[in-house]
Amino acid sequence: MSDTTDTRTLDLAVIPGDGIGPEVTEQALAVLTKAAGRAGLRVSPTHYELGAEAWLRTGETLTDEKLASLREHQAILFGAVGADPRSTQVPSGLIEREILLRLRFAFDHFINLRPSRLYPGAVSPLSAPGDIDFVVVREGTEGPYVGNGGTVREGTEHEIATEVSVNTAHGVDRLIRYAFDLAASRDRKHLTLVHKHNVLVHAGGLYRRTFDRIAQEYPQVSTDYIHVDAATIYMTTDPARFDVIVTDNLFGDILTDQAGAISGGIGYAACGNINAEFTAPSMFEPVHGSAPDIAGRGIADPRAAILAGALLLRHLGHEDAASTIESAVEDDMRDHGAEQRSTADIGRAVLAGI
Amino acid sequence: MSDTTDTRTLDLAVIPGDGIGPEVTEQALAVLTKAAGRAGLRVSPTHYELGAEAWLRTGETLTDEKLASLREHQAILFGAVGADPRSTQVPSGLIEREILLRLRFAFDHFINLRPSRLYPGAVSPLSAPGDIDFVVVREGTEGPYVGNGGTVREGTEHEIATEVSVNTAHGVDRLIRYAFDLAASRDRKHLTLVHKHNVLVHAGGLYRRTFDRIAQEYPQVSTDYIHVDAATIYMTTDPARFDVIVTDNLFGDILTDQAGAISGGIGYAACGNINAEFTAPSMFEPVHGSAPDIAGRGIADPRAAILAGALLLRHLGHEDAASTIESAVEDDMRDHGAEQRSTADIGRAVLAGI
Ligand SMILES: CC(C)[C@H](C(=O)O)[C@@H](O)C(=O)O
Ligand SMILES: CC(C)[C@H](C(=O)O)[C@@H](O)C(=O)O
Repeated sequence: MSDTTDTRTLDLAVIPGDGIGPEVTEQALAVLTKAAGRAGLRVSPTHYELGAEAWLRTGETLTDEKLASLREHQAILFGAVGADPRSTQVPSGLIEREILLRLRFAFDHFINLRPSRLYPGAVSPLSAPGDIDFVVVREGTEGPYVGNGGTVREGTEHEIATEVSVNTAHGVDRLIRYAFDLAASRDRKHLTLVHKHNVLVHAGGLYRRTFDRIAQEYPQVSTDYIHVDAATIYMTTDPARFDVIVTDNLFGDILTDQAGAISGGIGYAACGNINAEFTAPSMFEPVHGSAPDIAGRGIADPRAAILAGALLLRHLGHEDAASTIESAVEDDMRDHGAEQRSTADIGRAVLAGI
Repeated sequence: MSDTTDTRTLDLAVIPGDGIGPEVTEQALAVLTKAAGRAGLRVSPTHYELGAEAWLRTGETLTDEKLASLREHQAILFGAVGADPRSTQVPSGLIEREILLRLRFAFDHFINLRPSRLYPGAVSPLSAPGDIDFVVVREGTEGPYVGNGGTVREGTEHEIATEVSVNTAHGVDRLIRYAFDLAASRDRKHLTLVHKHNVLVHAGGLYRRTFDRIAQEYPQVSTDYIHVDAATIYMTTDPARFDVIVTDNLFGDILTDQAGAISGGIGYAACGNINAEFTAPSMFEPVHGSAPDIAGRGIADPRAAILAGALLLRHLGHEDAASTIESAVEDDMRDHGAEQRSTADIGRAVLAGI
């Protein structure tokens, strides 16, 4: 683009990653670039090679230098990382922990935002799904994900292995405030806290007390509480009851995979790893993984990655560009649903709708 | 019954509990008594008043005396405990922790056994559920349920709340052995480990290493591993793939509620809290709770409680009596499915099939 225009620039880091990551990210970036362009924004992408493939080549996951460099961008568009499980060269979980989780923690992505919608044309495995349209606000930097814990007498019959879930007033407060703000901005204005406070009394107590306190500030938002086990039942029998759900890191991980499944598959589920205080770049990704089994065949559905691009634009304040993408995906879903098409075909169809 | 016969006696503790607990337990006990009788067994039940109602009357949950007395029985038939959430007199979670969880820990119920079946006549909310017939072997005495953890600076903006998941070689070993034995006894002979070892590396590592080691002893059992988040997807898209699942206490709690829902509702889900070393009585209960909203109206479905009776008989070695009950419930399901009938009508119909 010409530098004589008044175009503002979006300086993005792009991490295509492994497996189908690069294929879907290519489409997502094209759609994002066009939608941004219509809003007078120029996208300047910098690609980073990170993931299992890169690790196999270089022996490095995410260096401090790359982390520092990533920090300079306005936001990160992330594909998927993860080794082919048929390869035994990559230690299980290493790539996820040292790249995905490291970024979430290093950049303080305390909001893990996961909208679920049953798009027109999408096929839910539920026979009566109703009008599924909710958002899970999952904590992203605390809970059982902190990596605390360890083993004693590992490998012996006396081994003890612990995992410590760490939850702070600071972390729970900012999470729940974000969720109330989001609920207040939506039509139904309903917020559900999901936890397991009858068993996890300490963490659950902190969540409940914080929730009840902040609820006073949002009289316009109606609220309820559901134990995580019961939440999986409602997800199955009446998911349309949910508007906004706020929950802990691990419960959010579990519930959002289920939410993806009932909404027609995690092929349409996008995720924002958000630092809502803007002290570091937020990161946007499809919920699905690197899917090595279908990688390289050009058949991966790029719509989750494309929708991640919409979340990115919204986060940076470009609501119109975000909605444009979401409408284009919705139109494509309505026209084609889950019909078999190539990655490029779907990308082109959505692009044409921008 | 006459004491001149050679009838053996089943000395059972019965804890009807709260809400619909007493209603469904009455039917379960009647069915169990008849099925046992046909197998030449006399049932001698001793009723214990425990639960929220009893707490409101006496201020006691489960005294050491009652615990000692319960220990003397061969097994426990448990209804459901839990306060009416409309009452604010009972501290949330107190009854569950001080009765249900206390019994599981005191009597070392390390196997929490939860079969899921889509009975003929039952209506799954999934449009293509397939032939659901699996068992979840949930750990019952470790993991995040141990009550470790606490709060620091509670109620201040500097509060930290922790929960510690404690897992031992002893606990994981006996759990996984039980699951392999169960899988080896079934037609499909397939065992799935569910955990989240990519994030919970310490606990997950102990589970995986133990699983891989014991698998060597069961070459006839095929195995796989699924992360808990992905497991909720398979539960939705292809639950028939599961045969036996072995998992941790919290993951088992979550997955079995989902399993109940996809199998037509937790109205048909029974649970064995099993001490497989027989050092204390095991306890059998419906997975559903006390359902205060429908209590006292005689409309609760007693089939989950009745099926818990079958698990009890099987645990005590009375396989024929157990199968008789399961067949009678299956026949009733085939004839009536989820049709609206009273608790007593369902009980009578199942009883007639014994
Ligand atoms: C890959 C894994 C570490 C990750 C998580 O558990 O958060 C994933 O399941 C997700 O939900 O983004
Ligand atoms: C009532 C509660 C403590 C219990 C549990 O979490 O184990 C229940 O959900 C269950 O599954 O039996």
